[in-house]
Amino acid sequence: MSLDELAAALPPDTVLTDAALLASYRQDWARDPDAGTPLAVVRANTTADVQAVLRWATAHRVPVVPRGAGSSLSGGSTAVDGGITLSTERMRRVTIDPVTRVAVAQPGAFNAEVKAAAAEHGLWYPPDPSSFEICSIGGNAATNAGGLCCVKYGVTTDYVLGMEVVLADGTAVRLGGPRLKDVAGLSLTKLFVGSEGTLGVITELTLRLLPAPPAACTLVATFPSVEAAAMAVVAITAGLRPSMLELMDNGSINAVEDFVKMGLDRDAGALLLARSDAPGGAAAAEIEQIRAACEAHNAAEVFTTSDADEGEAFAAARRAAFPAMERLGSLLLEDVGVPVPSLPTLVHGIRAIAAERDTHIVVVAHAGDGNTHPIIAYPAGDPAAEARARLAFGEVMDLALSLGGTITGEHGVGRLKAPWLGTQLGPEVMALTRRIKDALDPDGILNPGVVLPARHTSSP
Amino acid sequence: MSLDELAAALPPDTVLTDAALLASYRQDWARDPDAGTPLAVVRANTTADVQAVLRWATAHRVPVVPRGAGSSLSGGSTAVDGGITLSTERMRRVTIDPVTRVAVAQPGAFNAEVKAAAAEHGLWYPPDPSSFEICSIGGNAATNAGGLCCVKYGVTTDYVLGMEVVLADGTAVRLGGPRLKDVAGLSLTKLFVGSEGTLGVITELTLRLLPAPPAACTLVATFPSVEAAAMAVVAITAGLRPSMLELMDNGSINAVEDFVKMGLDRDAGALLLARSDAPGGAAAAEIEQIRAACEAHNAAEVFTTSDADEGEAFAAARRAAFPAMERLGSLLLEDVGVPVPSLPTLVHGIRAIAAERDTHIVVVAHAGDGNTHPIIAYPAGDPAAEARARLAFGEVMDLALSLGGTITGEHGVGRLKAPWLGTQLGPEVMALTRRIKDALDPDGILNPGVVLPARHTSSP
Repeated sequence: MSLDELAAALPPDTVLTDAALLASYRQDWARDPDAGTPLAVVRANTTADVQAVLRWATAHRVPVVPRGAGSSLSGGSTAVDGGITLSTERMRRVTIDPVTRVAVAQPGAFNAEVKAAAAEHGLWYPPDPSSFEICSIGGNAATNAGGLCCVKYGVTTDYVLGMEVVLADGTAVRLGGPRLKDVAGLSLTKLFVGSEGTLGVITELTLRLLPAPPAACTLVATFPSVEAAAMAVVAITAGLRPSMLELMDNGSINAVEDFVKMGLDRDAGALLLARSDAPGGAAAAEIEQIRAACEAHNAAEVFTTSDADEGEAFAAARRAAFPAMERLGSLLLEDVGVPVPSLPTLVHGIRAIAAERDTHIVVVAHAGDGNTHPIIAYPAGDPAAEARARLAFGEVMDLALSLGGTITGEHGVGRLKAPWLGTQLGPEVMALTRRIKDALDPDGILNPGVVLPARHTSSP
Repeated sequence: MSLDELAAALPPDTVLTDAALLASYRQDWARDPDAGTPLAVVRANTTADVQAVLRWATAHRVPVVPRGAGSSLSGGSTAVDGGITLSTERMRRVTIDPVTRVAVAQPGAFNAEVKAAAAEHGLWYPPDPSSFEICSIGGNAATNAGGLCCVKYGVTTDYVLGMEVVLADGTAVRLGGPRLKDVAGLSLTKLFVGSEGTLGVITELTLRLLPAPPAACTLVATFPSVEAAAMAVVAITAGLRPSMLELMDNGSINAVEDFVKMGLDRDAGALLLARSDAPGGAAAAEIEQIRAACEAHNAAEVFTTSDADEGEAFAAARRAAFPAMERLGSLLLEDVGVPVPSLPTLVHGIRAIAAERDTHIVVVAHAGDGNTHPIIAYPAGDPAAEARARLAFGEVMDLALSLGGTITGEHGVGRLKAPWLGTQLGPEVMALTRRIKDALDPDGILNPGVVLPARHTSSP
């Protein structure tokens, strides 16, 4: 096994082994303390480069960790000792076909770059992870990322019409294409979406675009309790399709108010942030229906606006939750989902876990679809506090599972959540997953330890 | 191998071997003249029955053809000589959870029954294949069925949140669940959607529901040419989201006018039927924007209505195309898709194929997404005419592929289109498909000959 052999198969300056650089690719945003150190980082320029890496890796049984922008919160691109970290950060081209209304994007392009390219043609790529300005579209596809508008517009998989993907042995295949309806063959495109780099490396995506959304109206409402807010959410979504429906618990309200004085009600049990983008001037009427639902469920204060800037100001509290907590130390970002009626039980349970583990947890949630982000903060550089925070991280997943929920709604399983996956899926589904994995990656070189436990393959 | 052994594992009256009954299960709506005769038909009552069939079939290497309502137009449930046809027609339960807004449906329920159950709670299951009153929801999932509202609301896979599926060896697994966002593990739910019974037998579906759509407005417009209509379609979909956008070519207009005198313009090159269900009273405004786009692209006549009954009357011409052609003989229903700008080339090419093969072909299309249904009619009981029609059926697929299209937009590959699949997907994707198939159905007992060629497995 020789890195020289790999370097010879690639353009100059593509295989990087500088120690400081390797160190900078060890972790992603999950900040896994157990991250490995890669043997080399390859910054692929083309699909051919990705193929060369995988051919070499298969020949030498070397693990390959695909990496987009490194913003995984689940450790999906955490490096493996002795592996290749295969970065797509140089593959950034985005082209728009306005007639068929698709974007063709290389995986390293940021989500925001896809949105911007579409907007130049009056079109819109909806999925909007909170990190959209700095996360890669390839990573979005690999994790089936969500976001705030999913409650109305669905998640990444709903927009991936086709892809080019390089398999473990270096074969590049094209799946699907720019067709809204195409059932020719198995749904392989959909299988690769959300596979977290364990089945292949996505080198190009064909994404469905919508016409630009109409102007939106925004509402913010405070409630005496999470229970009241959750009942309002159920009432709203029974008859309406808001384009955003976010919840903050008392803890996140106070964390934000500590950070930026917005005049938020520190005694509120919960805050809801809702948006309507109903077309043809119907958004204002829809937001009034949402107001009525909030008031019917004991909202204390309700504000609405049809002004875009004021609407963004309303949303600022929600967006400030993450930086507000980041001031307090290192963070672990949870991503558990539960049925909406179980949101109050989840929030109260999390408060109990935080007390028990002496750690700080606040909750923001994409309430419309039951996907929550408990944010756990602990003092940086305090190993005991970090250990307690990581215990709480696991206990929040246990709690969500006990409520019929999921350990991850949109961040992915990665390495961090892999130990919990079997509890959620059960042994038969894990075995089925292993059969698919083994069929597509028989040597287990693709992102070992992500989703499924890594295993040492026997010699061929 | 003994059917008695199978019958003993199942409730009475579940395994049927009456010759007349077996004959009635040979074909589906594809009317494949080469259909086999099943060894037995099993009308499963429960998931356990399905498991018993698959355990027995695996033990004895007997092919199993899953069958819902038998309405496949691609031969997806055509019987295999010596196989078991496994019907889900008795598994019809549908329950609605209005709070999480999901339907839990057994596979034999008709699409219309799911819609009706949802409607009782003010909710809506959007996918609407033209056959929705007599096609099964299990078949819809197995083929990833589409329909008329897909142009705005997407296809079946966009609504399948979870399922119970029985694997080839009889293991029942639960995938996904009532969660709009859930990325825990591989996207196995999505892999089984559209797998046409080749990977497992779906025994329960968890389906996402939307609030009932608002009242719709409808437009009908005639155009001098398919080219003009196609340009109008591109213009409409660039900025608006109609909930229906259907096209009829001159042939289908005349076939319908021959059948029911509606006063359609027999000289029109094409007719467009559009619908808007924009909420909050915005539908009328949206339909006026669609009218403007039609008029800007040389529409000869445009009629609009906000009356539901009149809107249905507008749609009657489109719905009459199938019965109008059925009067003329036996039918073959095509399902090819092309990019919208290629629609005129496809329609003209189909006319040339019809002339060359001396057969009758008219075109209706879900124009908004480029999915077309050329309808081929030939005199019943005329083998030479049937042979010419089947040649034309293949040539239409060849033509669509030459235009960058797909051989099937929503009906599935089945047995009828399997010979063309390799041309569309290429050898690498076919090999990848075979790897998945072999991993999940190592003995090849599940719907052999559908999607992939059947192959005789060697002994273990």
